[in-house]
Amino acid sequence: QSNVVIYGELDAGIGQRYSGEDVGMISNYAGTSRWGLRGSEDLGNGLKANFNFESGSIELGDGSVGGSGSFNRQAWVGLSGSFGSLMVGRTTTPQNRVMGTFDLNGTADGSSALKAIGLAANGNLGGSRQNAQVQYATPNFNGLQLRVAYATNDNTETDKAFAQAAVSYKTGGLTIGGVIHKKMNDAQRTGYALGAKYDFGSIVVSGFYTRDETEDTRTNLGGGDGFGLGIAAPIGAFTVGLQAAYLNHDNNAVDGATAYELFGNYSLSKRTKLYAAAGYVNDEAERRGGYKEDTTFGIGILHKF
Amino acid sequence: QSNVVIYGELDAGIGQRYSGEDVGMISNYAGTSRWGLRGSEDLGNGLKANFNFESGSIELGDGSVGGSGSFNRQAWVGLSGSFGSLMVGRTTTPQNRVMGTFDLNGTADGSSALKAIGLAANGNLGGSRQNAQVQYATPNFNGLQLRVAYATNDNTETDKAFAQAAVSYKTGGLTIGGVIHKKMNDAQRTGYALGAKYDFGSIVVSGFYTRDETEDTRTNLGGGDGFGLGIAAPIGAFTVGLQAAYLNHDNNAVDGATAYELFGNYSLSKRTKLYAAAGYVNDEAERRGGYKEDTTFGIGILHKF
Amino acid sequence: QSNVVIYGELDAGIGQRYSGEDVGMISNYAGTSRWGLRGSEDLGNGLKANFNFESGSIELGDGSVGGSGSFNRQAWVGLSGSFGSLMVGRTTTPQNRVMGTFDLNGTADGSSALKAIGLAANGNLGGSRQNAQVQYATPNFNGLQLRVAYATNDNTETDKAFAQAAVSYKTGGLTIGGVIHKKMNDAQRTGYALGAKYDFGSIVVSGFYTRDETEDTRTNLGGGDGFGLGIAAPIGAFTVGLQAAYLNHDNNAVDGATAYELFGNYSLSKRTKLYAAAGYVNDEAERRGGYKEDTTFGIGILHKF
Repeated sequence: QSNVVIYGELDAGIGQRYSGEDVGMISNYAGTSRWGLRGSEDLGNGLKANFNFESGSIELGDGSVGGSGSFNRQAWVGLSGSFGSLMVGRTTTPQNRVMGTFDLNGTADGSSALKAIGLAANGNLGGSRQNAQVQYATPNFNGLQLRVAYATNDNTETDKAFAQAAVSYKTGGLTIGGVIHKKMNDAQRTGYALGAKYDFGSIVVSGFYTRDETEDTRTNLGGGDGFGLGIAAPIGAFTVGLQAAYLNHDNNAVDGATAYELFGNYSLSKRTKLYAAAGYVNDEAERRGGYKEDTTFGIGILHKF
Repeated sequence: QSNVVIYGELDAGIGQRYSGEDVGMISNYAGTSRWGLRGSEDLGNGLKANFNFESGSIELGDGSVGGSGSFNRQAWVGLSGSFGSLMVGRTTTPQNRVMGTFDLNGTADGSSALKAIGLAANGNLGGSRQNAQVQYATPNFNGLQLRVAYATNDNTETDKAFAQAAVSYKTGGLTIGGVIHKKMNDAQRTGYALGAKYDFGSIVVSGFYTRDETEDTRTNLGGGDGFGLGIAAPIGAFTVGLQAAYLNHDNNAVDGATAYELFGNYSLSKRTKLYAAAGYVNDEAERRGGYKEDTTFGIGILHKF
Repeated sequence: QSNVVIYGELDAGIGQRYSGEDVGMISNYAGTSRWGLRGSEDLGNGLKANFNFESGSIELGDGSVGGSGSFNRQAWVGLSGSFGSLMVGRTTTPQNRVMGTFDLNGTADGSSALKAIGLAANGNLGGSRQNAQVQYATPNFNGLQLRVAYATNDNTETDKAFAQAAVSYKTGGLTIGGVIHKKMNDAQRTGYALGAKYDFGSIVVSGFYTRDETEDTRTNLGGGDGFGLGIAAPIGAFTVGLQAAYLNHDNNAVDGATAYELFGNYSLSKRTKLYAAAGYVNDEAERRGGYKEDTTFGIGILHKF
């Protein structure tokens, strides 16, 4: 028998998503239902072979699996050792791995202020995943780590060749991160993002800035600045928090999009929590062509295995 | 590593299904090939977090998976404890969980008399599964247990909002069960079902009645009474049995549909059995628009892991 | 918990496949990314119940899974014991199980000389898998084993009823194998194949002949002879090898197709290797309507779990 680990996550509850559906059962509001296989083989001298297959998101409302049951979240193999780690395949971007931490509610799909205006900490400069990557991460030098990724053109319409570099640094309560992104095909989307978080023990404060340099002359896409701010406080097994996000546009900076998120989580264990969250978005400027003025709320359970 | 359990079932053999195909390899004749993940986390004080992903049916003839590889059989998360158990997501209905026991051959797909005329003990008043359920089961009170489920409208054409309540009671050799069902959207299918089973030790006898109140004026659907009767006898590792089912129609009660099933199972272990079964159906009245007069038989192996 | 085993394989690297794509990330060049479940239950007296579900190939470039996530590689259940073993379902053919060994680089998809001209050792007389099989293998008699399979018509266009018998014999450094194949539907493809391999310790030499009797009058399909030759040498953890394949056509024997493969593998462990391979094919005669004159190369990692 091999050393493979089966893992996953499930999220279900009751609520109302952005976009005007009725109140009803919700899934993947605070997390992403998924399942996966991962493993690591010790090859000696500190060298390891590593892999990960991950499938999702799984909609618990009907059992459907995103990507028609493919391993569209993770499908990679690689080596790690004293030189760092190398991965080849489909996986999360350096941005996703470094910047996601600055959303204090785990980039929750349902209520995230950043996601509500298309400004997800983990993916605003591209998808949060990228096909056909070769991704390298340095070892962790006293909290400092660099990640670079290059993706060859994979002959699909939506995932073009790209390059990213991201850096993260963690010392004491402080975490900072930054990423630069270049998409090398038609869309020519380029940009960068910076984030910082400080854990004071009784509260955690996080800030996030991103610049999208996309030269896209359409009215509501590309070219702009995004901001995010968050504060969260653990109170025993509870964590409560508030986050806000704002996005403007180079051609019409006054017409920004704004979103707010209020959340509370109650940990039943390290693997299971109850959650409640609410969100408000005002994107009447159609900065992202999104929800105009809208609200959302959800309560539920998130379980990891 | 988590406490996740991988489980499944495979069924293959040789035979001829209802519907006139040639004799050949059959799959899922006596059971349903599937695989799944399930787990339970102890949260303390008797509280548990539970989940289940299950995918199938898997046709062993070509490896194809029903629902395009989705977890269309089970995809839910919930909590259980002294209050009972709560599940949220896609799962089997209360009817399925309570009434299936009255088919003495496990609601076998290939030969079931009840299924042959669209009268499956586990699903005749709706599908055997339902999207977007919130399902609650009481604790087991000396053999008595109540289950209720409510499903919000999940925005699909086929699975509409519904409500069900089912009760089961088991004492000594006796098992009884009942269910009431209301489908709240266009089809307005409502009805109820009752079943009883007695295990005399040397034989088991089972009976089943269901009433479909559907106000559907089409000639061969909705509105009618169904009956099922079964007898089975364990003889060492063998079990042999005979079952019959009858379904009439409110608008034309004489033109009922009738089906018979003869089965024999030989247990090689708790997880593996050899089976042989044959069935006859007469639905010339097109009560279910089904097989007219037809026969089926199959022999095979069913293995659980 | 049952005795189920989760297993799989991942292959990713950099290279250029046959067919003129740009150099970029490659997957499944030297192996086939996959995952599966298999298990065996001891029923006593040497009797076992066995099963296998296997899904793939998985393209690591985008995580997509062949056959839309179905268990299209293996989906069978069966029994084994002193009588041999019996499998029912979709599985690899006797030819695949016996003849694949004569390709010294594991019938690698990317570089195999045999596969480049449609002459795969493991499947040239049919697919490498077959739906709806009943397959029986004798016990191993001092290295001698016989396999027979019959597949009923499974009502699909591509997988028709067929029969195969294959024999393998292994003694000391010698392995020989042969298969006869009959496809009983419209294509009427029949034929046979023979192979032999000798392991001298310092080198391994393999030869392969196949005869396709297909009575197909189209210019470039069916009816012909195929040859394969290979030599490989282990040098510590390295293995290097060279293989060639040739295919003619009954109606125009001079216009054959030829392919060459040069490969080197470096074992990091029993489960993980680095590989490099290059191939050249000349099929200007369009014997298989394939690549004309073309080249390929790839380097990568193959990991099994």
